[in-house]
Amino acid sequence: MNPSAQLRPALDAIAQAVDTRLDRLLPVPDDPRARLVEAMRYASMAGGKRMRPLLCVAAGDLFEVDKERSLRVAVAAECVHVYSLVHDDLPCMDDDDQRRGKPTTHIEFDEATAVLAGDALQALAYEVLAHPATHDLAEVRAELCLQLAKASGTDGMAGGQMMDLAAEDGGFDLPMTTRLQQLKTGALIGFSVEAGAIMGSAGASERTQLRGYAHDLGLAFQIADDLLDIEGDEDKAGKALGKDEAAGKATFVSLMGVERARSQAQMLIDQAIDHLHGFGSEADLLRAVARFAISRDR
Amino acid sequence: MNPSAQLRPALDAIAQAVDTRLDRLLPVPDDPRARLVEAMRYASMAGGKRMRPLLCVAAGDLFEVDKERSLRVAVAAECVHVYSLVHDDLPCMDDDDQRRGKPTTHIEFDEATAVLAGDALQALAYEVLAHPATHDLAEVRAELCLQLAKASGTDGMAGGQMMDLAAEDGGFDLPMTTRLQQLKTGALIGFSVEAGAIMGSAGASERTQLRGYAHDLGLAFQIADDLLDIEGDEDKAGKALGKDEAAGKATFVSLMGVERARSQAQMLIDQAIDHLHGFGSEADLLRAVARFAISRDR
Repeated sequence: MNPSAQLRPALDAIAQAVDTRLDRLLPVPDDPRARLVEAMRYASMAGGKRMRPLLCVAAGDLFEVDKERSLRVAVAAECVHVYSLVHDDLPCMDDDDQRRGKPTTHIEFDEATAVLAGDALQALAYEVLAHPATHDLAEVRAELCLQLAKASGTDGMAGGQMMDLAAEDGGFDLPMTTRLQQLKTGALIGFSVEAGAIMGSAGASERTQLRGYAHDLGLAFQIADDLLDIEGDEDKAGKALGKDEAAGKATFVSLMGVERARSQAQMLIDQAIDHLHGFGSEADLLRAVARFAISRDR
Repeated sequence: MNPSAQLRPALDAIAQAVDTRLDRLLPVPDDPRARLVEAMRYASMAGGKRMRPLLCVAAGDLFEVDKERSLRVAVAAECVHVYSLVHDDLPCMDDDDQRRGKPTTHIEFDEATAVLAGDALQALAYEVLAHPATHDLAEVRAELCLQLAKASGTDGMAGGQMMDLAAEDGGFDLPMTTRLQQLKTGALIGFSVEAGAIMGSAGASERTQLRGYAHDLGLAFQIADDLLDIEGDEDKAGKALGKDEAAGKATFVSLMGVERARSQAQMLIDQAIDHLHGFGSEADLLRAVARFAISRDR
């Protein structure tokens, strides 16, 4: 059985659980703000692989964190991920018309609404995390807010996206590309995994192991993305492919070649799984996610 | 002495204190993220009235909150205010070229950098609030994050900006315009004042009084803004004026006329100050801010 099929039920369950909670968090008001909330719903619901939510819940499971609480963190991580996609797709950024097989938010609505929907999704993430329903220890809620903010600011996602824009001018070597991706996608993947440890009041060594897992997973995930960008099927991906190559932007594949990129991704996944050696079968879902990261077709 | 002159030393001191802290929080990295951080510094430092920071510190003073801690909350509130200005000035939103007497961020840098700078300033606000240096009680840090998120999401600033965009299509009456402004500017002003009560573990009745003060102040502040928009001096304002009128957008002045708007603002300020009757001279700074809100020239 391929990893994708093995993981499918878990991914489907998490997708439905996240959608249900987003639906509850985003009631459409009966005034002109309806357009804003509808754009947030359009961007965030019914689509996406829900990789980050799955990581939040799978990592929480390691420490027997209450599922409803893990799902709140999962929703917060996904809100930040989705806001970054909405803003990255804008004409002034990557200028993409398609995402997850649908028109992007600024195409379906308009640019101003897309900017605001992204902004409000970012705020929603903290509203969810900081709320007492997320954890009875305020220390945990504050720590989650702090780590999410670090993962998405200048030393995380936003910083990585700035480097990505600069990468279009060329000259990025492998260390710089690695750094870019660690910030742009790795930091939020790292938050998703580490959040489980924070919620479960895990010890320092367990936290270090999970950080190692997330680090290797994040890079492997990005290498797989770069491979899909040149070898993938646009219909399955639900977005335009081959854009990096056309823009002359350095990617792991352009820097290492297809074969070395593929073996590097596999090595990183082996390494990621190796970081989990201290855990038993309760970490099988995290192991399956790692295998899925490099075998997916979208 | 007019209120502006009375308040000047306090405003100057807070402006300098906020700039010093932003300077420390935003070191320019030695990689392509430099452009992002420079845009964040450009947008946030050396400019603006610093009304929200002053409210944070003045409200904190009521409860003898440590100044350094109040200033962290002040910086967070200002980061959210500045991010909203950067995004509101974008071509797809209000399309403004001038702000605080300087080119707007997307003009000085570019649109993509402006979008990211706003996004990263929002993240920075939560990074600052959730950090242990802001308060030794995690309960307080989590509550500050929660209230800031509420004040800036769909039921706050972002919701208000969405209504503002819809207002260009006309048909907004006085209740709808009041609601718009309560969300767009009132919510963050409310956070700035209430944060002092949260930091100082104030009782429910003190919190209610401050909420009443902030509510009236916020509306009066906005009416004063609308008056400045038609009567002010562009050089002093540092931005284009008369845009609402030209766009046919309903404002307090277009709906009430200049005279009624002026007397309404004065009544709201009297009412705001009245909410402070339970406090002694320690609330004089908040009283001065209220008087300043409707007597300023920018």
